[in-house]
Amino acid sequence: MKKFIDTIDGFLDESLRGFAKAHADIVDLSPEPRFVSRKAPAKPGKVALVSGGGSGHEPLHTGFVGLGMLDAACPGEVFTSPTPDQMLAAAQAVDHGGGILFIVKNYAGDVMNFEIAAEMLDAPHDSLLVHDDVSLPENRGMGRRGIAGTTVVEKIVGAAAEAGYDLAACKALGERVVHATASMGVALTSCTVPALGKPMFDLGEREMEMGVGIHGERGRERMALGSAGEIVDYIAAVIDDELQPQPGQPVLLHVNGFGGTPLIELHLMYELAHRHWSGRSVDIARSLVGNFTTSLDMAGCSLTLTRLDEEMLRLWDAPVHTAALRWGC
Amino acid sequence: MKKFIDTIDGFLDESLRGFAKAHADIVDLSPEPRFVSRKAPAKPGKVALVSGGGSGHEPLHTGFVGLGMLDAACPGEVFTSPTPDQMLAAAQAVDHGGGILFIVKNYAGDVMNFEIAAEMLDAPHDSLLVHDDVSLPENRGMGRRGIAGTTVVEKIVGAAAEAGYDLAACKALGERVVHATASMGVALTSCTVPALGKPMFDLGEREMEMGVGIHGERGRERMALGSAGEIVDYIAAVIDDELQPQPGQPVLLHVNGFGGTPLIELHLMYELAHRHWSGRSVDIARSLVGNFTTSLDMAGCSLTLTRLDEEMLRLWDAPVHTAALRWGC
Repeated sequence: MKKFIDTIDGFLDESLRGFAKAHADIVDLSPEPRFVSRKAPAKPGKVALVSGGGSGHEPLHTGFVGLGMLDAACPGEVFTSPTPDQMLAAAQAVDHGGGILFIVKNYAGDVMNFEIAAEMLDAPHDSLLVHDDVSLPENRGMGRRGIAGTTVVEKIVGAAAEAGYDLAACKALGERVVHATASMGVALTSCTVPALGKPMFDLGEREMEMGVGIHGERGRERMALGSAGEIVDYIAAVIDDELQPQPGQPVLLHVNGFGGTPLIELHLMYELAHRHWSGRSVDIARSLVGNFTTSLDMAGCSLTLTRLDEEMLRLWDAPVHTAALRWGC
Repeated sequence: MKKFIDTIDGFLDESLRGFAKAHADIVDLSPEPRFVSRKAPAKPGKVALVSGGGSGHEPLHTGFVGLGMLDAACPGEVFTSPTPDQMLAAAQAVDHGGGILFIVKNYAGDVMNFEIAAEMLDAPHDSLLVHDDVSLPENRGMGRRGIAGTTVVEKIVGAAAEAGYDLAACKALGERVVHATASMGVALTSCTVPALGKPMFDLGEREMEMGVGIHGERGRERMALGSAGEIVDYIAAVIDDELQPQPGQPVLLHVNGFGGTPLIELHLMYELAHRHWSGRSVDIARSLVGNFTTSLDMAGCSLTLTRLDEEMLRLWDAPVHTAALRWGC
C-alpha cells in the first residue's frame, strides 16, 4: 500500500486536523463527535445545510463547508457512514432557527443514520436525497447512488439557503436539481482503503470498470480499456438517454476526477465531452473540472451534466467561500 | 498504461483545448505556437510575467495565468521544454510596455530556450530562475531544480507586477522569495509518460524515492517506505538545515501533491508538517494544500516552506483570479 499514513487508527483524525488547520479561516472542527462547521456567520433564520458521508471522497463534503454552501459536514470513517450522533451534534451546532436540511447521498447506511438523527432532532428539518448515478437502472434495490452530482446540488441549494429560501423551498429546489442531473463514472484502477491495505477489486491492465461507484462498487460492465473518445461516447450516450438535453439547453458540465487521475487527463476528457454536447448544440453554460468527489486513489473520472434553468444558473454563480470552491467573495 | 488518452500525438493539444474552454472567462489559448494568456486587461506599463515548462505538471503553469499572477504560460510537450518561438510569441502578445519577466524553473532545456527567446525579444526583459529543490547539494552541475516553490514565487511576484512594481523590482522581489523558499519531495510510485507507455522508473512495493524530481529524477536516497511521520521528519530536517526558520518567523507551508495522491493524505501530511514547525514555534501564517506542481500520475508529495516578510505576506494575500488559485476577487 503506497500511502502517506502514520497509523491506520489515526488516519482520518490526523487528516481532518490538517484540513481544519489549513482552512482555519473557513471551518471549525469538532473532534468528538466529528463534524466540520462553517466559521462565516449566518443570518438568523437561515436554513442550515448539513451533509456528510464516508470519508475518502475529499474534498466532498468537508471542502464544501462555508459561506454559500454547507453549514456542516459529518465525515464517517473511510467509506463508512457517519453515525447519527455526529449528524445530530452538527445539526444542533449550526441551527440558525430556519430549520435543517440534511443532504444525503443515496447509500443504505447514510440514509438510515440520517433518518435516526432526524428523529432525534428537536427542530424543523427535512432531507434531500441525491441519486444522480445513472449507470444502473432506477428500480434496482434502493435506487440509484449519489455521486459527483452532489457537488452541484450542494452548491445550488447552498446559495439558495444563503439567499434566504425557506426549508421547503430549499428542498423543492434541491429535488429539481437532482432531477436535472445525471452522472456516470469509469474506473481505470481500483482504490485502496487504508484499513484493508490492498486494492478493493482487481482490474486487469487492459480493463476498465464502466459505471463504477465511488466506493468501487461494480458498475454496468467490465470492459476492455477504451480510448478517451470511446469512453466519453459511452458515458455521454447514457446521460443523454436520461436527461435528453435539447439544442439550446443551458447545462453545467462537470468532469470529476477520482483522486488518482491528473488534471491534464481531466481536461482532455472535458474537451471530448464538450465536443459531444456542443456538437449537439447543447449550451455548455458552466463548467467544473477537477477532483471533487474522489474515491481515495482510484484512477478514473465521472461526467456529470445538469440541465440549468435561470434560477439554478444564478445560484451556481452566487458567491461561495469554501476550501474547495471559491468565487465571488 | 491506465490513462484517458485518445491519441498520443493529440494528448497535449486536446487537454489544452479543454483547459481553455473550461476557463474561457480567464484565459485565451494560442494553439500555434502554443501559449495561454490572460483575458483580464492589464494596466499600461505593467510588467508582464511569462513562464512555462514541460507539460505534465498541471495546474502549473497554465492554471496560474490570470489576474494577479502570470500574463502567459508556454506549455511544452510532456516533460519537455517549450521552444523559444512559443516564449517569444507569448512575450510579444502580453507586452504591456513595462517589460517582460521570464520565470524559469532551473532545468537545462528551459534555461537555454528562455535565453534564446530573450535574445530574440525586442523589448526590455529579464529572467528569474527558480531553484527551490533542496534535496541535492547546491554545487552539482547546473544547480538546484525548480519545483513546487514555483507556485509561491509566481503568486507573490504576480501580485507585485499587478501592483505596479517595475521590472527590476519584480526580479529583486522574486529572487528574495526564491532565496526564502525550500522544497523537497518524495515519490511513492513512478509516473507514466503517455508517449513512453510505461512507468519512468521502478520502485518496489516497500520503497520510496526521497528527494525525487518532478520528472521522476533520482533524489537523495532510495529508501524503505516510511510512515508519514518519518517522511515528514526527514524532509523537514533538510528544509530546516537550509532555511533555519527561527521561533516567531512567519512562514507559508505548502503541501503539494504529485497527481496520484488524494487530498485526504495531503491533509494528513500537512497536519504532521504543521506539528513539526509549530512545535518549534515557527509561525505558520499561510497554507496551501493540494495538487499544484504535479508529475502526471505520480503518487507522492513535496513540502515547501517560505520565510515570509510583511511585503511577501501582503502580496500572497492580494487578489488572484486564475484557474488554480482564486481569492479576493
